[in-house]
Amino acid sequence: MKKIAISIGDPNGVGLEIILNSHAEISKICEPIYCVHHTLLERAAQILRQELPKGMRTYPSGEVCFIRPGKVDRESGHYSYRSFLSAIELCEHKEADALVTLPIHKEAWSLAGIEHKGHTDMLRERFKQDAIMMLGCERMYVALFTEHIPLKEVAARVDTHSLYDFLMAFAPNANRESVAVLGLNPHAGDNGVLGNEERMIEEAISHANRMLGYNAFVGPMVPDIAFTPRVREKYRYFIAMYHDQGLAPLKALYFDEGINVSLNLPIVRTSVDHGTAFDIAYKNIASNLSYLNAIKSALAQIDKRNL
Amino acid sequence: MKKIAISIGDPNGVGLEIILNSHAEISKICEPIYCVHHTLLERAAQILRQELPKGMRTYPSGEVCFIRPGKVDRESGHYSYRSFLSAIELCEHKEADALVTLPIHKEAWSLAGIEHKGHTDMLRERFKQDAIMMLGCERMYVALFTEHIPLKEVAARVDTHSLYDFLMAFAPNANRESVAVLGLNPHAGDNGVLGNEERMIEEAISHANRMLGYNAFVGPMVPDIAFTPRVREKYRYFIAMYHDQGLAPLKALYFDEGINVSLNLPIVRTSVDHGTAFDIAYKNIASNLSYLNAIKSALAQIDKRNL
Repeated sequence: MKKIAISIGDPNGVGLEIILNSHAEISKICEPIYCVHHTLLERAAQILRQELPKGMRTYPSGEVCFIRPGKVDRESGHYSYRSFLSAIELCEHKEADALVTLPIHKEAWSLAGIEHKGHTDMLRERFKQDAIMMLGCERMYVALFTEHIPLKEVAARVDTHSLYDFLMAFAPNANRESVAVLGLNPHAGDNGVLGNEERMIEEAISHANRMLGYNAFVGPMVPDIAFTPRVREKYRYFIAMYHDQGLAPLKALYFDEGINVSLNLPIVRTSVDHGTAFDIAYKNIASNLSYLNAIKSALAQIDKRNL
Repeated sequence: MKKIAISIGDPNGVGLEIILNSHAEISKICEPIYCVHHTLLERAAQILRQELPKGMRTYPSGEVCFIRPGKVDRESGHYSYRSFLSAIELCEHKEADALVTLPIHKEAWSLAGIEHKGHTDMLRERFKQDAIMMLGCERMYVALFTEHIPLKEVAARVDTHSLYDFLMAFAPNANRESVAVLGLNPHAGDNGVLGNEERMIEEAISHANRMLGYNAFVGPMVPDIAFTPRVREKYRYFIAMYHDQGLAPLKALYFDEGINVSLNLPIVRTSVDHGTAFDIAYKNIASNLSYLNAIKSALAQIDKRNL
């Protein structure tokens, strides 16, 4: 069975509880290695008033911390970062085949003096490669051309060359299915009346298609029509020009099941697509659907790489 | 029964066919006045190979035109404009209680030398009032703070005063239900890290709530979370900062049933929320769900104004 390194996320959030509640199920399909102290699993089980599942393989690092359900603190921020680092190392040393991450808390990272904005940024810097952030589920995936930047900076980022590079890096992940590329402006610019960035998007698409030798990309599509049922019937992969353009429709349609995938990296990495959910942590009500899907997607990607 | 003036939209699109196929149903709930020549209804019925429904009251204006299914032309653009004008006049002269519009084609208007970008813009100019464009259906309505402008111009439009005015104009339409107001940036700015327009949105909301004396508005909400099932359970009305932020999720969820409502005008006006659909015109396959909902919504608003 494939080994999956699992970083536990913020110990004060829903990560540990999801891990405990899913161990039985996921150990049927993979060999999980939990980057956490065994003591911390015990503490979490105690708070949740449940038995610790048997046979959980751990890979601890640094010092153990306390659990303070729902609290933003330095200690838990630091712990979640260590867990993430250890999981990456397991993948780098080929002791694990993929990395699945549970949610960290950005403010807790910042309190702990960690400067990365999040998992994906840290991976980008560590591997010096332009990771592509893709979110979604089997029925619909959205890759983001720009991510966590203010809306007013988005339009200036759209240019033929960087979009062309993005498309070429994305192409191998779509299994030769046609990918829908969104326009930037309302009505995709309405022939230039509502903006003209679509000309560059069109150019990038046609260059990429010519280079790849098939119609890999279709667009620029009218953004508010792209996610209607008739279009979704035809495409599984979408490329959004900015964060909310893609993620608002995605989450409106498929909230609980979504996952986050980092493409274009030397290691396979998937993640749940929700936050630490401090408000419901340790109440035994967090859904583990996104986590199960993240594990399954990681396994599928390992297989794809081994082809 | 209430009288509804109906503008037929572009004769080459799906408007006339929707009118013919819905007459029996809508005449049970209102008295429709079709702003069209009887001859044109006959021609449409002929192309569709169906009988003309009995008792269709018409209010023609200008000269009749030919029908050229799916064609963008000057003549049909002009005709659709005349039909729209007549319907407005019926409302102004109190010969109709509300106006329901079918889709026009912007390029056809432009060929006919009509300078307005669309129905709403024309109404705004005619009544010299800042109409609010709201789209949706009974379960979810989205009002747009900015509409048909390039994405790069959106951020600069967000300021406390204009948003405050918008909120105060919108408030009477929400039946004292709380209205969700979206942020502008990813994660609603993440405390200023991803943009700071949210501070102005917050200010506008709190001024408006203070002025109204109740919590009319809630936000700024994280845009990609605002349309998830858990939030939609709590709110029926949403205010989006820009076109695709609100309409992409809305159309992903409720495409066929959506309508377009113009608020803050002296007359009641609703519209279907689809285009001329030239590709399927006169094939007897266009859905009339949006049209029926537009009629019902117009009737509901007449009742509200008469309270």
